[in-house]
Amino acid sequence: MRMCRTISFNSWNEYFKAPFGALDVNQGADIRVNTNEEVYSICLVITKEDENLNSKEIRRIPLVRKEENIYECKIEPLLVPAVYYYYFEVEVMRNGYNQKIFYGKVKQNGESCEYDFDNLIKYQLTVYEESEVPAWFKEGVLYHIFVDRFNNGNKTGKPSNPKKNSFIYANWEDDPMYIKDENGDIIRWDFYGGNLKGIINKLRYLKKLGISIIYLSPVFESSSNHKYNTGDYKKIDPMFGDEDIFEELIEKANAKEISIILDGVFSHTGADSIYFNKFNNYHSKGAYDNVDSPYRSWYAFDDSKVGYKCWWGIKDLPNVDELEHSYMGYIIKDEESVLNKWTKMGVKGWRLDVVDELPDEFVTEFKKELKNSETDSVLIGEVWEDASNKISYGQRRKYLLGKQLDSAMGYPFRKGMLSFLKGEIASYELNDLYMEMKENYPPEAFKSNLNLLGTHDVRRVKTELNNDKEMVKLAVLAQMTFEGVPYIYYGDEAGLEGDKDPDNRRTYPWKNEDSEMIDFYRNSIQTRHRVKPLLNGETNFIYTSDNDVFAYERFLRENEEDNCLIVINRSDNYKHIDFDFEYDLLDEIGIKYTPGDYGVTLEKENGKFVVDIGPKSFMMFKMKSIQE
Amino acid sequence: MRMCRTISFNSWNEYFKAPFGALDVNQGADIRVNTNEEVYSICLVITKEDENLNSKEIRRIPLVRKEENIYECKIEPLLVPAVYYYYFEVEVMRNGYNQKIFYGKVKQNGESCEYDFDNLIKYQLTVYEESEVPAWFKEGVLYHIFVDRFNNGNKTGKPSNPKKNSFIYANWEDDPMYIKDENGDIIRWDFYGGNLKGIINKLRYLKKLGISIIYLSPVFESSSNHKYNTGDYKKIDPMFGDEDIFEELIEKANAKEISIILDGVFSHTGADSIYFNKFNNYHSKGAYDNVDSPYRSWYAFDDSKVGYKCWWGIKDLPNVDELEHSYMGYIIKDEESVLNKWTKMGVKGWRLDVVDELPDEFVTEFKKELKNSETDSVLIGEVWEDASNKISYGQRRKYLLGKQLDSAMGYPFRKGMLSFLKGEIASYELNDLYMEMKENYPPEAFKSNLNLLGTHDVRRVKTELNNDKEMVKLAVLAQMTFEGVPYIYYGDEAGLEGDKDPDNRRTYPWKNEDSEMIDFYRNSIQTRHRVKPLLNGETNFIYTSDNDVFAYERFLRENEEDNCLIVINRSDNYKHIDFDFEYDLLDEIGIKYTPGDYGVTLEKENGKFVVDIGPKSFMMFKMKSIQE
Repeated sequence: MRMCRTISFNSWNEYFKAPFGALDVNQGADIRVNTNEEVYSICLVITKEDENLNSKEIRRIPLVRKEENIYECKIEPLLVPAVYYYYFEVEVMRNGYNQKIFYGKVKQNGESCEYDFDNLIKYQLTVYEESEVPAWFKEGVLYHIFVDRFNNGNKTGKPSNPKKNSFIYANWEDDPMYIKDENGDIIRWDFYGGNLKGIINKLRYLKKLGISIIYLSPVFESSSNHKYNTGDYKKIDPMFGDEDIFEELIEKANAKEISIILDGVFSHTGADSIYFNKFNNYHSKGAYDNVDSPYRSWYAFDDSKVGYKCWWGIKDLPNVDELEHSYMGYIIKDEESVLNKWTKMGVKGWRLDVVDELPDEFVTEFKKELKNSETDSVLIGEVWEDASNKISYGQRRKYLLGKQLDSAMGYPFRKGMLSFLKGEIASYELNDLYMEMKENYPPEAFKSNLNLLGTHDVRRVKTELNNDKEMVKLAVLAQMTFEGVPYIYYGDEAGLEGDKDPDNRRTYPWKNEDSEMIDFYRNSIQTRHRVKPLLNGETNFIYTSDNDVFAYERFLRENEEDNCLIVINRSDNYKHIDFDFEYDLLDEIGIKYTPGDYGVTLEKENGKFVVDIGPKSFMMFKMKSIQE
Repeated sequence: MRMCRTISFNSWNEYFKAPFGALDVNQGADIRVNTNEEVYSICLVITKEDENLNSKEIRRIPLVRKEENIYECKIEPLLVPAVYYYYFEVEVMRNGYNQKIFYGKVKQNGESCEYDFDNLIKYQLTVYEESEVPAWFKEGVLYHIFVDRFNNGNKTGKPSNPKKNSFIYANWEDDPMYIKDENGDIIRWDFYGGNLKGIINKLRYLKKLGISIIYLSPVFESSSNHKYNTGDYKKIDPMFGDEDIFEELIEKANAKEISIILDGVFSHTGADSIYFNKFNNYHSKGAYDNVDSPYRSWYAFDDSKVGYKCWWGIKDLPNVDELEHSYMGYIIKDEESVLNKWTKMGVKGWRLDVVDELPDEFVTEFKKELKNSETDSVLIGEVWEDASNKISYGQRRKYLLGKQLDSAMGYPFRKGMLSFLKGEIASYELNDLYMEMKENYPPEAFKSNLNLLGTHDVRRVKTELNNDKEMVKLAVLAQMTFEGVPYIYYGDEAGLEGDKDPDNRRTYPWKNEDSEMIDFYRNSIQTRHRVKPLLNGETNFIYTSDNDVFAYERFLRENEEDNCLIVINRSDNYKHIDFDFEYDLLDEIGIKYTPGDYGVTLEKENGKFVVDIGPKSFMMFKMKSIQE
């Protein structure tokens, strides 16, 4: 622990703050501070932001001296869910003067540090309302399918109902590309012909792989291959299938205990949608050139060059006013709303695309209606950063405070893990990163975090790791033993490579799979399902003595005998690691992965554990408990 | 006739020059000149060009005075085939001085005109060796098929053997486009999937239409959709079919008395050919990076940026040295040469792509070997201008002199006819244009000229004529009643529109044909087949008194009773035309086409014919003879 001059505090240590991390609205916390010199007073100050992100002091709690150098206080329940911040105000005698000094947190670490007031980094204190996430989700393994690229279920192999003036890749194996004009605008859409029938045909494969949740890229009618430019929220895209086939998919998936989650794109529609109908493709009275269109009020027409507000300036994606009454009704509230139509059909959850663009009220109403429609459902949001404190458009978002998202996309998991494996950050930095997230996220949100290594928006994990399969395996093992929901981007398990979009959207390589990698995924997933602490245990991140070795423990509070110690060595060298605490070894090996001829051993030496781990290796031990 | 000051001459009038037009090497000609003032002497000077196009006087023939103002001479047979030129050198007394003056031709007209020597436009005198073109060709009707775009014969409708990394149009009806990168380079090829089987399936349709010759765009293996970048001269492209299917096509076409002509691209190969193999697609030792490749000597490697000579700077099309021994052998002379392989299989003719780029010797050898291989075959050349006097790369070409081409692409026919119909030139200018061609071309070449209204390289006739179907019909009627071989670009008969490449390569609109237009084509072609003078008669172009009315006569020398008078009124008005000579009307109407309510009548008035013709109308009469 870093020594501080005046006081010592570490929010990541329950000696100083208990309980760890976020608080339920009705939950208090005990705070303890050690002093390293004489102080007059210590005060815990809690702040909250107003609408403009200006900090407002809301509580000032004096700490009481308990022992020679120990001060304590209790934070009474904060009652209102929000992201709070706190810091310590300390009165101390320095150079003969009575001075006020401020203690906040070290950036990306739980320890405290002295600041002048203006530069103070406060501790985050997330206060949430309880909102349980269904076990099927928390304990599930998710598989993300980009529908056009996964599998074509037609017997002829010909895509169904191809779009006018579009291209079909001549071969399933061809490299994806955008067809653009000289200005870089996409002028024609390219399709491989994957469809829902193709997914139905592969349910057995997915089940065998250990998948329990399928998240589908958008399936509603749309002119593009990705379908983020929705054309008709209430219609399955004819290239993908129809409502009967979609229902068949849901039923057959459910029969295999696989749930279906949809991608909902509600910040904008396609310009060629039945709602906007810019190009008069439909008989509908589109908003674009009909003042009396029923959809006119959804959009914001203006005097700009394009003539209407659109998403990031892309004229094909006119923005909607999500809070507009008829839009809210159409998407969320009406009995036959988009949400209700598909949820009633058996959809178990929704991912809100670009949730940062959606107003809080829209997200809250969506969640409310969704839970009404189906109690056991989940709401996921596309957030790229720490979702607990995300600011978008000058607003601190409330995603994880209980009334909005059950789960967020786990890009930070990916970023940290891949940075570590590539040698860009040290193991302690990776620990810090995950610890901060664990501290900030409500426990249910952390357990539900989507630990992804790839999506349709980033380079594939294999490519990101320079085609080093051993490194990919380490990443997968970490993913499958991590707290949160493993999220597999279709094809990653088959060894697909892929640079940034569109290369990351290659087709699933049927008949050219890396079957060894598939087996590896399958075994890892099976281990997760088999070993309870992996499935729903909590996590202790362990600081090792080696920058190349990352370790963490997964444990169940109610069962101390089943704890798992996970150790990952990213380096090319054999590593000898002393663990700073005692274990009782129950079972030498849960999963062990070590490429080449190197071995993995674990020795009990002087009452402490010593692990010898080979290069680029992963090991997991079952232990009796951890005693700090 | 234009009055000339000193002498009068008109090469288009047999009073002055007989026979009209080009001469056989063993044929002489009689020349007559009228004088309008006293002359000392008149001399006919015949010149010939050397290799550098420098004119050399080769004969000087004094004209002899026959009557008061008539001078005559005889041109003895010139014996050597070539394009000759002639003019008149006249000695005359002017202003008291004995002066030499020069008479050449009026530009694009047969009449004579006085020039100073340096600006003299000489008369062309084409002297050819006799070379009969087979009747099946001269009397045929040709149909040009761009194979990828005509018809897909696969039961599934899926293209066979699609190329790696290529695109298939999602729908047969989609608009064609090139897929280019930001530099404008084609980065991926686009296919509709038309194939040879598809042509076989439509032979009945073509036969019924009246087609007797199918000219196929290149069919040899190649990465592109047009296949002008040949990959393997001895292999049918797998998307199009294979040798068995090609033989089946030939047999089934022959059974319907339809001959097949291939497109031969011998000026360059594809960079990705088995010969050049730039991208190592083949196991063959390609010339590109193998000094010991058997094809190395075909190409010209140099220090340029690209590293080798290529066609118009397109690096995907490396030029070959056509006269290189092994290339000549491979393409022409070997027993199993490209020419022999396919000709022996039943191909009845070849079109030489970009013949302007091929050396004379290559073309001559090709023709020789072709006639050896199949006596009844034809050789066609892609020439865009008057093929009788074409200069390419500083050389006067010998295409039509007897040892090279049987026929040339008739772009001048198209240009003239469409210019006339669009009102850009007057009927007399159109007459001049065709008369000049008729004068310059050997009779067999003129009879074999490919009278085309569209190809894959120009806008479709319907688009060129601003979608005016009435105008299209006039063009088609002219084409089908013209001397030469009607050449139909697939789909024109079905009412296809198409701007310049690639829009002119839309697919044949099966099930969306303009069936009225197809009937119109079929009827016109049937009339051509039925009416002898149209099929193989000669032509008199007739100067009418109206710029909007074009007229010509088709006649058989051996049968004066069957002559046809054709009159075309391009204007929106009713026209009353007096013909300047006498006819005996045999049959009022052969074909008559008049849109709307207007009628066509022909009256015999004062021993002359008067024709009343409606707006945008065509009429044809069977007459007894023409007496000038």
